[in-house]
Amino acid sequence: MTIQAAIGELSSFLGQRLTCSKSELAQHGTSETHFPLTPPDAVAYPETTEEVAQIVRICAEHRCPVVAWGTGTSLEGQAQAFQGGVSVDFLRMNRVLEVAQADMHARVQPGVTREALNEELRATGLFFPVDPGANASLGGMASTRASGTTAVRYGTMRDNVIGLEVVTAKGEIIRTGSAARKSASGYDLTGLFVGAEGTLGLITELTLRLRGIPEAISSAVCAFDTVDRAVECVIDTIQMGVPMARIELVDTESVRAVNAYAGMELPERPHLLLEFHGSEAAVAEQAETFGEIAGDHGGSGFDWAREPEDRTALWAMRHNAYHAILAARPGCRALVTDICVPISRLAEAVEACREDLAQARIDGPILGHVGDGNFHAILLFHPEDADERKRVQAASERLVDLALSLGGTSTGEHGIGVGKLGYMAREHGAAWSVMGTIKQALDPDNIMNPGKLVPPRN
Amino acid sequence: MTIQAAIGELSSFLGQRLTCSKSELAQHGTSETHFPLTPPDAVAYPETTEEVAQIVRICAEHRCPVVAWGTGTSLEGQAQAFQGGVSVDFLRMNRVLEVAQADMHARVQPGVTREALNEELRATGLFFPVDPGANASLGGMASTRASGTTAVRYGTMRDNVIGLEVVTAKGEIIRTGSAARKSASGYDLTGLFVGAEGTLGLITELTLRLRGIPEAISSAVCAFDTVDRAVECVIDTIQMGVPMARIELVDTESVRAVNAYAGMELPERPHLLLEFHGSEAAVAEQAETFGEIAGDHGGSGFDWAREPEDRTALWAMRHNAYHAILAARPGCRALVTDICVPISRLAEAVEACREDLAQARIDGPILGHVGDGNFHAILLFHPEDADERKRVQAASERLVDLALSLGGTSTGEHGIGVGKLGYMAREHGAAWSVMGTIKQALDPDNIMNPGKLVPPRN
Repeated sequence: MTIQAAIGELSSFLGQRLTCSKSELAQHGTSETHFPLTPPDAVAYPETTEEVAQIVRICAEHRCPVVAWGTGTSLEGQAQAFQGGVSVDFLRMNRVLEVAQADMHARVQPGVTREALNEELRATGLFFPVDPGANASLGGMASTRASGTTAVRYGTMRDNVIGLEVVTAKGEIIRTGSAARKSASGYDLTGLFVGAEGTLGLITELTLRLRGIPEAISSAVCAFDTVDRAVECVIDTIQMGVPMARIELVDTESVRAVNAYAGMELPERPHLLLEFHGSEAAVAEQAETFGEIAGDHGGSGFDWAREPEDRTALWAMRHNAYHAILAARPGCRALVTDICVPISRLAEAVEACREDLAQARIDGPILGHVGDGNFHAILLFHPEDADERKRVQAASERLVDLALSLGGTSTGEHGIGVGKLGYMAREHGAAWSVMGTIKQALDPDNIMNPGKLVPPRN
Repeated sequence: MTIQAAIGELSSFLGQRLTCSKSELAQHGTSETHFPLTPPDAVAYPETTEEVAQIVRICAEHRCPVVAWGTGTSLEGQAQAFQGGVSVDFLRMNRVLEVAQADMHARVQPGVTREALNEELRATGLFFPVDPGANASLGGMASTRASGTTAVRYGTMRDNVIGLEVVTAKGEIIRTGSAARKSASGYDLTGLFVGAEGTLGLITELTLRLRGIPEAISSAVCAFDTVDRAVECVIDTIQMGVPMARIELVDTESVRAVNAYAGMELPERPHLLLEFHGSEAAVAEQAETFGEIAGDHGGSGFDWAREPEDRTALWAMRHNAYHAILAARPGCRALVTDICVPISRLAEAVEACREDLAQARIDGPILGHVGDGNFHAILLFHPEDADERKRVQAASERLVDLALSLGGTSTGEHGIGVGKLGYMAREHGAAWSVMGTIKQALDPDNIMNPGKLVPPRN
């Protein structure tokens, strides 16, 4: 078999760093969400770019699928080997190669996690702002075009990756971008590989834009009577141009789950979780403006987290909300929706979503990055309840249709993988074929993360 | 001849809106910089996307080159028809289709100029921030990934185009992106077409991100003893995180030219031209911080332009600097360099550039968007002085090598066209072939702006 031939060669090349151990295969076939176990045939642990290139060359020769693995926290099956092959785990490529303080960028290997990078940056006064919640690898975050709670202020991975080193499907090593702040030199290959989910090549190095740690940071929570009023407050805040660093919604059900999970005592009502970054004066000005807007929408119970440890607790709570919600119904799995709509349509979208879920009798707490128009419904189902699973799938599909009808997108930040492949044609129409043409040109043998993102080959 | 066959069909299709008049051909074969006259064989004036698609289909059938034309202000020959064919002039596709105030974006046709859009936005409190100086068309600005004086704060066209409608080389109409603020849905085709210089398709509609007009705007000029000290002041300002809206350098020679051309009386020393955007308090805070940094570097002669008309005069002066410099040596043409380097290497780059030009006896006033690490030397030469022309070309090439050696790029904002084609291999190495592969896949017959940006076909 061709995959076995590749594994034989890889084994000679990598020795102990190529494994077919059952437990490691299973670990690399598992996702945090609802996809079934799909172990790869082998796991490779390269230590250098040159090794990655050689791995890809060997796989190309034998037409063996190559799937990148960071921390396995993607939500649409991006890192799973649905067609078998080799999982390339970047665990050992986890060095911060350079911190260019004056230029405010860092060069890192793809296995560095965002928390590890920020730890490394501690003494510099700089930080890497993109924060998807999970302590994901930066290579994975780039590949899925991750964003999260801070995108409203600092943008997504699209905005924070300056350049890449990539191993192409031919096993060639290329560099994209430069260390300059901007460039008009040729096609934006950096932008093409960011969000390509490993279907065009493997990212072996990233140059990331860093930001100065703000002089002042304030976090707060604020309760609202209804989700609608909270969302209207968000819309007004964004439209007023208040440069929020984070503005997150958690609905009543999410609050309930979080209270139970983390021993919090938030009132059981919808909340906004907020963060302000800037100079002391700017933060005070922003908070005052926000306070007035929130007041207009019946916001109450403002609670400030001024100390770093209180802020950390607040955002840990937010980041653990997914697990808190899962814990509220033991034995359940979740399908996490990820629609993103223009901010003017956000209230309408959230309202329609809540009504739909109620009607379909689905447990679906809502939370999300509402400053971007992006929110998640955590659709719970029991894996053995086929009917519930079906209802959840159907609701997810209706939500995508809703987002598209409002000018939005099926996925604000989780990506396509296999989970949203079925929506690509309706979201992109003929543009999806253009994606397929690019894939075909850059990976003619379809070895890079096959079966994901682009139209299936005939 | 195949081009003639295409023109015959196009003429039946477009009637009067397909012209072969000598003067119009000449107008569409002229650039603002040093390239020779290269008229297309015909000029088409479509009025709708469907017409553009039909034009491309006809040209595809006859393998006739298709070159987009906006306002003809690109600087690397991007809009010239070096291989003949049809120039598609977007003059008649100049409507603002939608201003979504609440979502802060606008949908426009490609022939809308940036000034026309901002005029249209006047009553909304919003503006489109990208400002390359020339009143370029927005389609052209997207195609060349333009930026300019405000990129330091608001980013380039890469950051301000949310979505596109594009006619592909097959004559198919596709849409990229969505109206949502972010998306992780598939390859970033928007980013691929922005900066592709019409080599992959024709942009027929753009969705652009708008910004709120700041509550307060202050502009200022500040003189320095030497270019070095001005540049060091810029570096410190950027590294301190002062959110400058503009921070532009003009050297002594540029000041002299501008004084003569615009009847100004700036002291004949290097200057920084500045603009601050924000709330009243924020602008005051920024200006104070900048003032302290400038003081440390011997900045003096601070002169504030607080009234809108004074600000307009200041930036008109900056925008006219290119023409002022040309006017200073009548009969001359210019090769405008455009290197961009990491900010930490900016002083070194400017200094090396000045020394090089002095040694090569070249008139090359320097100005630029130094907050991004991007600056231009306006290399003057007499078109009939072959030796001078050669020296200018050689200096331009040395500057590119300098930029690349410092981790920078050959072009911060002017793009490749034909003028910088010769530097692509050394800037991008194997990544340039990847660009060629994408071009080959999306435009197999090489009809879209042939001879530009990508490696020449064998």
